[in-house]
Amino acid sequence: MADRPHVVIVGGGFAGLYCARKLRRAPVRVTVIDRRNFHLFQPLLYQIATASLSPADIATPIRTVLRRQRNAQVWMGEVVDVDRESREVRLADGVSVGYDYLVLATGATHAYFGHDEWAEHAPGLKTVDDAIEIRRRFLLAFEEAEREADPASRSRQLTFVIVGAGPTGVELAGAMAEIARRVLPSDFRAIDTSAARILLLEGADRVLPPYPPELSRKAKRQLEALGVEVRTGAMVTQVADGFVVVGDEECIEAENVFWAAGVSASSLGARLGVETDRAGRVPVQPDLSVNGDPNVFVVGDLASVRKEDGSPVPGVAPAAIQMGKHVARTIGRDLAGRPRNPFQYVDKGDLATIGRAAAVAHLGPLKLSGFVAWILWVVVHILYLIGFRNRVLVMLQWAWAYLTYQRGIRLITGESHVTLRQARRSDGASDL
Amino acid sequence: MADRPHVVIVGGGFAGLYCARKLRRAPVRVTVIDRRNFHLFQPLLYQIATASLSPADIATPIRTVLRRQRNAQVWMGEVVDVDRESREVRLADGVSVGYDYLVLATGATHAYFGHDEWAEHAPGLKTVDDAIEIRRRFLLAFEEAEREADPASRSRQLTFVIVGAGPTGVELAGAMAEIARRVLPSDFRAIDTSAARILLLEGADRVLPPYPPELSRKAKRQLEALGVEVRTGAMVTQVADGFVVVGDEECIEAENVFWAAGVSASSLGARLGVETDRAGRVPVQPDLSVNGDPNVFVVGDLASVRKEDGSPVPGVAPAAIQMGKHVARTIGRDLAGRPRNPFQYVDKGDLATIGRAAAVAHLGPLKLSGFVAWILWVVVHILYLIGFRNRVLVMLQWAWAYLTYQRGIRLITGESHVTLRQARRSDGASDL
Repeated sequence: MADRPHVVIVGGGFAGLYCARKLRRAPVRVTVIDRRNFHLFQPLLYQIATASLSPADIATPIRTVLRRQRNAQVWMGEVVDVDRESREVRLADGVSVGYDYLVLATGATHAYFGHDEWAEHAPGLKTVDDAIEIRRRFLLAFEEAEREADPASRSRQLTFVIVGAGPTGVELAGAMAEIARRVLPSDFRAIDTSAARILLLEGADRVLPPYPPELSRKAKRQLEALGVEVRTGAMVTQVADGFVVVGDEECIEAENVFWAAGVSASSLGARLGVETDRAGRVPVQPDLSVNGDPNVFVVGDLASVRKEDGSPVPGVAPAAIQMGKHVARTIGRDLAGRPRNPFQYVDKGDLATIGRAAAVAHLGPLKLSGFVAWILWVVVHILYLIGFRNRVLVMLQWAWAYLTYQRGIRLITGESHVTLRQARRSDGASDL
Repeated sequence: MADRPHVVIVGGGFAGLYCARKLRRAPVRVTVIDRRNFHLFQPLLYQIATASLSPADIATPIRTVLRRQRNAQVWMGEVVDVDRESREVRLADGVSVGYDYLVLATGATHAYFGHDEWAEHAPGLKTVDDAIEIRRRFLLAFEEAEREADPASRSRQLTFVIVGAGPTGVELAGAMAEIARRVLPSDFRAIDTSAARILLLEGADRVLPPYPPELSRKAKRQLEALGVEVRTGAMVTQVADGFVVVGDEECIEAENVFWAAGVSASSLGARLGVETDRAGRVPVQPDLSVNGDPNVFVVGDLASVRKEDGSPVPGVAPAAIQMGKHVARTIGRDLAGRPRNPFQYVDKGDLATIGRAAAVAHLGPLKLSGFVAWILWVVVHILYLIGFRNRVLVMLQWAWAYLTYQRGIRLITGESHVTLRQARRSDGASDL
């Protein structure tokens, strides 16, 4: 097997992992390199942030996924550079790995529009650790409010601002409103958790901007029914400790701000030596290879790909999966001496959920909302979860949460053991 | 309700929580104060450390447990001092809380026999964060070994030393050996994970010292059948980066050392102004009150209590539960004008598990081992788990793990995103 062409895939997300699996019968050696040892089902990450699922429910070790694929090995490590000249990638610990084919699939993270200093006040949601941090802050706010005597401080603590009304923002806001109104009230004595304010701020003129306007309207109505204040055309111009500024003058006092806007591609794209777009994405050829280097592919959120009509392929899981598989097929065709095909994105539609038993869906000509869309959402997400165990457990937990209005994962964990904000302030620690 | 006597319970572990629940019909106001927002089922903590369960499976928010108990409120906060003169406790953020009755139930942690500098090399197992750290190191060792070319380094990476063969050490060693031999082999390509060395070091002359000798022998045999090297009479005299010294001269090279020895009571005991024992435990009167102060009780692992025969009551969950309930009854008797009773410990026996389908049990005259003891262990632990949801999920996950030899929670998470040890060494970071 050592003399087979070596395919190095950097990143074990949807694009990388589906590429690796699709290569299982190809006459190649596959090495998947990832900084983390697990594949994460990112579309459900907000459910960790809102205490509905545990990390392990939506994450599976990459090794386990590829366990039976004898032509694949997995390395845990961080790729920091690509040398296209000598055809090797370099890891953070100095080790170099040579390749015959390279597939870069390191994805994207959120971006603060050039204001990285906002990050400490408004955590985003891209990794398991991000999700646990959001969960910690969200739950801690109620704990603090329960002990707070001053009404103004208490109301600041019970104000939650979510910046960005794409699918992640909409899902976060819906879930947080539902927890505050349905799950927490009986747990607290001094505060009325259902009086918590959940604000969803969106710079564009409607929520879920990429969806059809009709669904945006329905999503807004469903969010408002859950008690979310939806503000469109609301440009955030400042985020600081205890407040958010919208536009030129409005200041919203809030201790809890969460970031669901902006996108910034992995910095590895810039190491390829080709010009990237504003978000750091790498423009690719129709076959997803990098200009002038047919053996280097970029896939998933790191790639800037256009549909036939010139509009961008969205940064969603189905697109990443399709790209990963396409590259695997292309490598197979190369080795069989057949010509390459251009990548064609098949739009399978969009789905977003808005709390318990409400969602919107857009599937070709079909536009669904409410309970029917929610059932569809449940089925699709269960089907795509990797690992049978995860499917059964997630199904069971959703059923339990649906029937009882309970959220089981309401744990405040993490570095800071004395987690109350007051305590941290008084002793000068700064981790929140 | 405001004029009822105020019972302040510090600590939401077994002793504190059972005390609070037992007071549900008493004419008192109850305030439970804990640094964390959840009750942790500590006997199963090692299953988080060994990737069998998620934290949420064995933890329940204290608020949720006391949700329907209208005379109880919960405060998240850290009590740092007790003023018996003015009858109040002081929190880390400066707030004081007055009490009529005080119940201290802040437990104990592990101790390094005066060598706190060993802690960074040999994490212990008392909190959820501890367990996740052990899980991270355990899983990371195999990831590193898979990429390591040098045989000596590789064998150091695949050597795991567990110090202390009480129930925690025995359970950790058994579970680790099982994972290395049964679960991981098919996931790795370059290494044979079943060749990993798992050493269990115990200073006393047998494992599970508090159990009858016959069960210690059986436990040792079962551990050895799983591939654990059991070393009794092995006093650890030094723990450093990469090695452990036993006795005067033997040096064991190992990158992974875990601590399951020693006990040190919560530092709050020392704030009572009474003399504590060597481990920091507070000696109590027969009614569990502190000498000279009948309204202050100490329960659980923080209390030094003797059985009628003069031997110490062990630091186990059933003892903590019994003490918590006894204090609740005592407060009830006080308020009804009836005399107090002395606490009497009822020994319900001991149980320890040694991996899949093996355990030892000691229940009065009954000494069980093997599969029968394991079934008993499963039933007892499921019954004592707080929360129906947890019971169902844990049962399901055990069944799944039992049938398939899979461990579902094999995630390496935590602060350090670039988690490989080499990477950390090269850039000077020191968090491992």
